[in-house]
Amino acid sequence: MHNLTINGERLWQTITQTAAFGAGPDGGIRRLTLSPEDKKVRDWLREQCEAIGCSLKVDTVGNMFATRPGTREHALPIAMGSHLDTQPTGGKFDGILGVLAGLEVLRTLHDAGYETEHPVMLINWTNEEGARFAPAMLGSGAHAGVFDQAFVDSRLDTDGVSFAEAIETIGYRGETPLGETSLAAMFELHIEQGPVLEREDIEIGVVTGVQAMRWYDLVITGQEAHAGSTPMDMRCDALADAAAIVLGAQDIARKLGGMATTGQLSINSPSRNVIPGTLTLSLDLRHVTDGGLDSLEIEVTDLIRKQCGKRAHLQTVWISPAVHFDVDCIETVRCAAERLGTSRRDIVSGAGHDSVHVSRIAPTTMIFIPCKDGLSHNPAESARKEHCVLGAQVLLESIILHQSSAGI
Amino acid sequence: MHNLTINGERLWQTITQTAAFGAGPDGGIRRLTLSPEDKKVRDWLREQCEAIGCSLKVDTVGNMFATRPGTREHALPIAMGSHLDTQPTGGKFDGILGVLAGLEVLRTLHDAGYETEHPVMLINWTNEEGARFAPAMLGSGAHAGVFDQAFVDSRLDTDGVSFAEAIETIGYRGETPLGETSLAAMFELHIEQGPVLEREDIEIGVVTGVQAMRWYDLVITGQEAHAGSTPMDMRCDALADAAAIVLGAQDIARKLGGMATTGQLSINSPSRNVIPGTLTLSLDLRHVTDGGLDSLEIEVTDLIRKQCGKRAHLQTVWISPAVHFDVDCIETVRCAAERLGTSRRDIVSGAGHDSVHVSRIAPTTMIFIPCKDGLSHNPAESARKEHCVLGAQVLLESIILHQSSAGI
Repeated sequence: MHNLTINGERLWQTITQTAAFGAGPDGGIRRLTLSPEDKKVRDWLREQCEAIGCSLKVDTVGNMFATRPGTREHALPIAMGSHLDTQPTGGKFDGILGVLAGLEVLRTLHDAGYETEHPVMLINWTNEEGARFAPAMLGSGAHAGVFDQAFVDSRLDTDGVSFAEAIETIGYRGETPLGETSLAAMFELHIEQGPVLEREDIEIGVVTGVQAMRWYDLVITGQEAHAGSTPMDMRCDALADAAAIVLGAQDIARKLGGMATTGQLSINSPSRNVIPGTLTLSLDLRHVTDGGLDSLEIEVTDLIRKQCGKRAHLQTVWISPAVHFDVDCIETVRCAAERLGTSRRDIVSGAGHDSVHVSRIAPTTMIFIPCKDGLSHNPAESARKEHCVLGAQVLLESIILHQSSAGI
Repeated sequence: MHNLTINGERLWQTITQTAAFGAGPDGGIRRLTLSPEDKKVRDWLREQCEAIGCSLKVDTVGNMFATRPGTREHALPIAMGSHLDTQPTGGKFDGILGVLAGLEVLRTLHDAGYETEHPVMLINWTNEEGARFAPAMLGSGAHAGVFDQAFVDSRLDTDGVSFAEAIETIGYRGETPLGETSLAAMFELHIEQGPVLEREDIEIGVVTGVQAMRWYDLVITGQEAHAGSTPMDMRCDALADAAAIVLGAQDIARKLGGMATTGQLSINSPSRNVIPGTLTLSLDLRHVTDGGLDSLEIEVTDLIRKQCGKRAHLQTVWISPAVHFDVDCIETVRCAAERLGTSRRDIVSGAGHDSVHVSRIAPTTMIFIPCKDGLSHNPAESARKEHCVLGAQVLLESIILHQSSAGI
């Protein structure tokens, strides 16, 4: 047994300090990937890591790997981390908490002179948010072999600046080849970005995986007609169809234990006194299992066909299968929480994270802490200090515990 | 009894001929109020009227009054007409049919040397559509005292050009004071702009009035949240509320014999994987009677309150009471249709027309003919030649018949 305790004040101070990189007037953060603000926070992180004797490598898409050596030769590193970029109007916790908690773990080990068999590594993945360069989780995806160098370099932001130009501009094109850094395990601490832990008053979420998700665009064609001279029973109202589908899909999702969301709905040529003729809406379906999502998709497709017949055109735009995290890593986090006597529950992430890609090539899991009102991607995003500190302690405990279970 | 018959070929030829003023490549017409195209069709109309001995007056908002003298001194004119302007992508019949049919009536009377006791007048009202200058029905409203000269002159188009500038530019500011021209009666022939006559295979609609209408904006505030991490039972989804209200209002309208339409719906900051937090939608409620519309409004308001409580803000943006046309004029059209042996039904207009304003100061009614699929304000707007000819014949018959019933 060890008696390592992370320094909560120091952790909180780094959260406050890094919030200056891209701070907006409303308390929010705008720190887009490879922007000058991103460079500042990256330089700061490099400095902090080197100050405690860690060596830093940067790969060819800007992923940063800081390593504290272990005692066993050839042992693969046990990694922590997340991402430093934010949404255009993001907050102080999404992503960066996982990096700063990892830094705090490194500092705690350093201060105590604590030796681990495995190297302990802190990672900052490039462009998790996808807000400047689509798609999201680009850096971790490139590391895991999902995207190649040419694809990443060719991504364009809305000003037409390529990823390649942007990374050269801030000087974060490293020399470490993509995927060269193998990991014994990866633990990512993150705010939940949902309301479950807060509502249930639970401190730690042990993340067993990520929901399966499918995104669709649905175009419904009705008949534009005059709102005053077209009797109710002679209408072909695309919005009435859409309303029935939005509500119906949500009913089906409730019944099957999944989720259905329409976040975008746009009437073509909308006019106050014209019955909508054509509209487009998005459909986001999720379920903990791929089979559950199959059932959800079948019932929703059936609903659309019954409502609109051939007047509806449904197109799948993205598919993400369910992710099941590594059972040993999950068990490690459960034990860590157990030892610390925190309240905990298993939870399935509804959002995508770098760990989804990393889990393809290394044993991976995540640790969630509650966030205020489940809010994220918003200046009002907030997490309580004691939860951040506890999350970092669970992370530390997991790293120590996992030393014994990880293969060397 | 007379044996006057309008010249259907000549009428149809004028429809084809005037469609050249503002013709687009798709068969549609773009003839915005006081545009160069509007000047061309006005010049053409003036020429046609003067060629058959009618005198033309133009008032200070550009309304055109062509008069064929009657035999009785001081008898007020019995008027026909409608408007020559179109929507930006309008058709060949909306408005202009009523003017051209009136011209055909004047020509028929002229050719036959037929004398009427009352003068017979043809009117072109300025800016019925409201597409260039808001509000709609501006010229007839000014004539009826609803709008004053300064208000009309100050209207701006989207390029910042005022009505005053535009009317001077095309030289159609006349000298006749607003409202000086009193009328014994007004008959406006128009396409139905709805599907009822076509579906019921009826040739003539005897228009008894115009529905009461109220327009509202509804703002619904929910809670923006992540689509993946917010369980279905922890959501406050503004779009789900909106969908329930759109469908519920339509159910209430069906039950009460009215109409409910949402033509605009816009989610604030829409994103595919974000539960909509705030949205705005329009609500257009109509009923044949003001009392019916009151009931409709009460039930819909109640529905909104039950669905959203204080999260909904409903604002009335426009009210138009029910209009009941003149019973004698209506009876005249019924008799005219009866004499001609056409199929006919009473109908209440769902759309606004110049006759709404004119009915405030003179006995007024309208005559509808079917249009294809109920479409208007669209290049595909279409009416059958035999219905146009029949509508003009009913108009002629009504003018002749009304001679005897109109006060001198």
